[in-house]
Formats: sequence, structure tokens, C-alpha cells
Amino acid sequence: MTPMVLVYPGEESLGDSMRSELPVESVDFEMRRFPDGETYLRIDSNVQGRQVVILCTLREPDVKILPLLFMADALRDLGASRVGLVAPYLAYMRQDRRFNAGEALTSRSFARIVSARFDWLITVDPHLHRRNSLSEIYTIRTEVVQAAPLLAEWIRANVSAPVVIGPDAESEQWVSVVARAIPCPHIVLKKVRHGDRSVTVAEVPDIERWGGYTPVLVDDIIASARTMIESVGHWRTAGQRAPVCLGVHAVFASGAYEALAAAGAARIVTTNSVPHHSNAIDLGPALVPHLLRVLS
Amino acid sequence: MTPMVLVYPGEESLGDSMRSELPVESVDFEMRRFPDGETYLRIDSNVQGRQVVILCTLREPDVKILPLLFMADALRDLGASRVGLVAPYLAYMRQDRRFNAGEALTSRSFARIVSARFDWLITVDPHLHRRNSLSEIYTIRTEVVQAAPLLAEWIRANVSAPVVIGPDAESEQWVSVVARAIPCPHIVLKKVRHGDRSVTVAEVPDIERWGGYTPVLVDDIIASARTMIESVGHWRTAGQRAPVCLGVHAVFASGAYEALAAAGAARIVTTNSVPHHSNAIDLGPALVPHLLRVLS
Repeated sequence: MTPMVLVYPGEESLGDSMRSELPVESVDFEMRRFPDGETYLRIDSNVQGRQVVILCTLREPDVKILPLLFMADALRDLGASRVGLVAPYLAYMRQDRRFNAGEALTSRSFARIVSARFDWLITVDPHLHRRNSLSEIYTIRTEVVQAAPLLAEWIRANVSAPVVIGPDAESEQWVSVVARAIPCPHIVLKKVRHGDRSVTVAEVPDIERWGGYTPVLVDDIIASARTMIESVGHWRTAGQRAPVCLGVHAVFASGAYEALAAAGAARIVTTNSVPHHSNAIDLGPALVPHLLRVLS
Repeated sequence: MTPMVLVYPGEESLGDSMRSELPVESVDFEMRRFPDGETYLRIDSNVQGRQVVILCTLREPDVKILPLLFMADALRDLGASRVGLVAPYLAYMRQDRRFNAGEALTSRSFARIVSARFDWLITVDPHLHRRNSLSEIYTIRTEVVQAAPLLAEWIRANVSAPVVIGPDAESEQWVSVVARAIPCPHIVLKKVRHGDRSVTVAEVPDIERWGGYTPVLVDDIIASARTMIESVGHWRTAGQRAPVCLGVHAVFASGAYEALAAAGAARIVTTNSVPHHSNAIDLGPALVPHLLRVLS
């Protein structure tokens, strides 16, 4: 039977792209809030015996988790054979150990909650800092979509003479993959620590040698955008071309996008893992092979 | 060892009252939000081997559930022997069956989530419409604090010649308990259905016979306050004393309190199950025997 997809409110752009790539039917539903903040949910489609994909990105995970768990429970109650989650941006990937005594291991708690209700999880470039694989915390089947080829493709089509720049040594491997696929040169920035909480980014040595290039700053998550803002400043101060800023996940803290634009970024571009007006790279086609695998 | 209590932000009034009634120590913690809406949590107290009570009312349950589950997980990780939840207002008690096809049984899903992480639950007057007991959905030990005696006590101390009025036939039993404890007469209103969605409250027959009385409208949850507003109107129109309005749970949808005040309520009074400026009845002392039982 044809699989079905339930598109969480706000995800229509990626949802439409997914549906245009794959033969799926839509799950219609009604969702609203009661005065005390409770969620009301009604599934309006017949899901009996069907595999259902819920598409819900996890920026603002706290307000979404209950509706999401209610969806999974309701779909199963109503006869869905399997319920999987496509969360293009996966939340709670940072706190995977105690940096300070007493810290809650939220990545573990969150993974346990999701693993208890879904049959599988697909995400895009999860922020795996100290873990090698999602399977260290998620007990369900997981598939990871790599955004690097899409970023490379966008850069090749839109930027002349690019040099790709990663935010820190940890990003070296990922950045080199992007650069090789274009192909073009790449560099990674060095972090300079000024005490406990203050970190800045070192200027690029011999920045003038990149005179003929367009700097392309890349990162997985753009949240505060501080590193990018600082780095854009270095390139502008050196009299170089204005950098293009590329992020996978358009998390953007309040005011961060505007500050990055004001710092002099030539362009700010993201994938549609988190709906945002900077989205210019569609993840839909890249999701398809992963969906076909989990739905087979 | 002395039990400990973790007071969720915003619950300080009831938390202080609980702590003044019972020998407990406080769990200190830090909680804040990341730009993508994730919660950061750090427990600052030594909870090794301790029983911990989390006090968190469940108005706005969707935004509170993850922090609450993180607290429970973190406390256990850090060695707490048992973790219980005092939720003076318990959310998701309405949707206990499918009124329309496809509806999510949120009361069941929510109970399952809470039951998986807490050892016990104490609440106050849960909205048990069609269930006889919380144990039909909660698999953990539950204790229910009855607010009726506290309401009766407040009415006796503050209202001269009261007549207690319940919103509908379903409230008869509860209202009669309040009235008997005062003691004073009571009546219940009749709902008049005008089609599918419109329900009004019938006027009190022979309303003039209550001329010497102060009407006291009581309900478990004041949310939209529509029934109370309408009823206040009936008493005012009949030239009777302005009613006093009493609710257990001050849920109050946006603008509802103001509308009830504007309708001519003489006074609006609630318990501190949900923090609100109408709180005048302290649940602290009534919680104590239940806490002593679950902590023993």
C-alpha cells in the first residue's frame, strides 16, 4: 500500500518537495490548542495498515514534542502499521555529556523519548560532536542525509572561484568533502580562547593571497552566527570580496540573521531543514533514497 | 534522609507553603533555553539517595513536559532514590475517549508519558468526567487532594448567608459536599443546548426566593468562564446580590478573568493550584498528608 505522510504545520515547503519526489498520500489532520495550553488532535485520513511518515523539524522541540508523540500514538491506535519520523533538524544533540556537574544529559533523554514512539528516524547532518553515530543514543533505526553534496552543488552553480571556509578544526573533514566535490580550495579557522567563556576566531593567515577568490563560510548550524559575523568582518577588513555564508540548519537565534546580513555577508543561504527565508537548497530529492530504504 | 523538593519556576508560592508545612530540603537548579528552543538543565544539589518531589502545575503542559522529563531523568542519574510529581493542576484529563472519529486519546498518551518517568503523582481535583479513578490511565501510584473542604472553609469564613451553585447536573455531588460542609443550601444549573455547539445555562427557577442569600458560583476549572459569566448575568438581572465566583483551578483563557470581573462578579477566588492573582486558598496544608503517605 502507498505510504502516507503527515506534514507538521510549518513544514509545507519540504513536505511538498517530498511528495513531488515520492508516491505518497497525505494524512489530513486537525490540530489546535485549548485555553490551558493543551493540544487537540484529530486524524482525518484512514491510515489502517499504512506506513506513515511524520515530517517535523525539531527547532523549538519543547513545544512540538507532545503533539508529535500524540500523532504517533493516534496513528498507531488508528491502525498504522509503522510510524517513522523525518526530523531534518534534530534537536538535543549538544548535551551528550556532563561539561559541568549535575547537568542533565538531554540528548540521551530526548533520544529515549523519540525511540519509544517511532519505528525509525531520518535526519540531516546531526550535530555529532563527540559521538560517532546516532545509534549510540537512538535505539531505533536511523538514517542520516549528508548535506555536503548539496552544499557543493549550490556553490558550484552560484559562486565563482570559491574558497570554502570551515569554522574550526573539527569541521575540517566535512569542509574538505564539500571542497573536493566542487572542486575548490578550503581552509579552516582557528579558535582563540580568551578565558573561560570568550572565544574568538583567528584571522586567516596571508588573507591577501585569497584576493581572486570568493570566500564561502560554511557551518552545520547557524544559531547565534557569532563565528560567521566575526569572520565576515575579517574578510571585509582585509579588503577582500564579501563572503557568502552557507549553513545546513537555519536555526538563527533572534536577530542573528539580521546581524549577519548587517556584518556584510554577500548572501546567506541555507537548506530547508528549518523553514526560513534564507532557504535556497531543497532537501527533498536527497531524502528520497533514505525514505525508500526505511519504507521498503 | 530528609526528602527534597524541586520547585518548577513560577510555583514559588505553593512551594514556599509546602516547605513551611513539611521538613524538606530544596533542590537548587539552573534552567535556561538555547536559541533553537532547547532546554538546558543543571541540578546544583546533591540528591544521592534522596526522595525528590517535583512541584510543577500543568497549565501549559506542552512547553513544560520536556523540562519535567529531563528533571526526572537527571535526578535519577544523579542518584535520587525516588522521584514523584506534585501537579496541582493535571493536564490532559478531557480527551479520554473519541467524541469524533480519529481523535487522539491525549489523556492516555500523556498518562503513559508521566507514568514512565515518575514513581508517584499527587494532584488536586482532577477533571474526572467519565473515569472513576486516575488509575484507569495512570499506572503509577496516585493521590488526589480534595479541594471541596478548602472551598467550604473559605466560603464559611468570607461569605454571609451563602447559597452554593454548581454549573451543571454532573457537579451535583461535588457541590453538595461543599454545601454540607459549610453548611448552606445549594442548587445546580441546567444546561440548555441550542444546536451542536451552542450551550447556555438556564436561569435559576424562582430566583427571587434567594433574595437574602449571597450566590457563590463554584466550578473545578475556570477556563473560558462562559458559564459563570452567563450565570452572574442572571443573578444581576434578577436584582439579586452579585455572585462570588470560586474555582479550584485558575486556568483562565486570555481575557476570561477580565470578562468575568466585568460581568459583575462580586469577587473571583481560586486555589493556588495554578499561580494567578485570584489565588486566595492555599493548598499547602492539604498536600501534607498525601506527601507524607507517598514519602513514607
